[in-house]
Amino acid sequence: MLIEKLHWRYATKKMDPNRAVPDAALERILEAARLAPTSSGLQPFEIVVVTNPEIRAQLRAAAFDQAQITDGSHLLVFAAWDNYTEERIDAVVEQTGAERGGVSDALTGYYERLKAMYLPRPAEENFNHAARQAYIAFSQAITAAAFEAVDATPMEGFDADKVDEILGLRARGLRSVTLLPLGYRDTSGDWLVDMKKVRRPMDDLVTRVA
Amino acid sequence: MLIEKLHWRYATKKMDPNRAVPDAALERILEAARLAPTSSGLQPFEIVVVTNPEIRAQLRAAAFDQAQITDGSHLLVFAAWDNYTEERIDAVVEQTGAERGGVSDALTGYYERLKAMYLPRPAEENFNHAARQAYIAFSQAITAAAFEAVDATPMEGFDADKVDEILGLRARGLRSVTLLPLGYRDTSGDWLVDMKKVRRPMDDLVTRVA
Repeated sequence: MLIEKLHWRYATKKMDPNRAVPDAALERILEAARLAPTSSGLQPFEIVVVTNPEIRAQLRAAAFDQAQITDGSHLLVFAAWDNYTEERIDAVVEQTGAERGGVSDALTGYYERLKAMYLPRPAEENFNHAARQAYIAFSQAITAAAFEAVDATPMEGFDADKVDEILGLRARGLRSVTLLPLGYRDTSGDWLVDMKKVRRPMDDLVTRVA
Repeated sequence: MLIEKLHWRYATKKMDPNRAVPDAALERILEAARLAPTSSGLQPFEIVVVTNPEIRAQLRAAAFDQAQITDGSHLLVFAAWDNYTEERIDAVVEQTGAERGGVSDALTGYYERLKAMYLPRPAEENFNHAARQAYIAFSQAITAAAFEAVDATPMEGFDADKVDEILGLRARGLRSVTLLPLGYRDTSGDWLVDMKKVRRPMDDLVTRVA
């Protein structure tokens, strides 16, 4: 079931500008990203859903003019926290306590130790850690799109500083890490659609220590 | 369907040491990781599947004594390339050419540009990039386990240098980034199993630019 969906999906090169992803499908894709597991449950990222055509045109210009950004109907921008802060971590403790019947000493202790470890580190190190968590959610969004028969193009090739500026991310303590245009493949215009999916053979990728 | 599986899964705290993941389920989990999309199709990581009990005991000691590592039946270690090299990238070009009817000028050109960008960068920057790709596969393995009704515990809390040493990863140009014990939850011994899954509300995680 899952494997079949993973075979179906591919990094769509040409999207049909005349078809839009339905709201219900979009929300399920976002929900999958929201449910992604993250280190200590911090979910240290946000997702910006851009449908505005002018903004998407600007973002496309900041991403090597990749047409999927405007040919698709939605663009997801995954933006990681630029740093861990006391306020951000305390908000997680508060929410967890509120949803799990109170803030216990064990809960507080766990996150105090986390703050003692994270807060003295350079912002760049914390951002890199947060970015990895964003990738877990990014990956789940890619998979979720396949389950909705929605095409997607995972993108790292863009000017992150420009994207941050266009969306005002830095002022919100965020830095863009990946883009994910969503839409529907234009099979007649896509050079990649009929190409064989290439992956390293299992024996090359996996070592067994038995 | 997917959403339901994502609700079912959780970071299992206590695994039943008397149940083992069947081979067929393990192979489907690995296949999902193998099919994960990565930047320029490089798949810059390997997965070490550890079943050996002595080696798992050593790894457990290098991972804050987390019992799932030995109570589960399999431990997946995701290890990213320590750097991008000409040989590694050329191998991708060769395989792609072999599976897609020849190495075209477009294919060669694309990866020559990639080499010109990646090879002069510091190893640490390339490792960080490779690690993010490993996280995409790690995420797909987590999801795939849920589809197999196999429990898993995504782990970042371990001494990567020790894990690398135990598995001889550095000599192979690899650095461990995440662990994923696989097995079956021991519901009577797991304090987390009945706890509410806590996630940031959608409005907090997602911004819409319409």
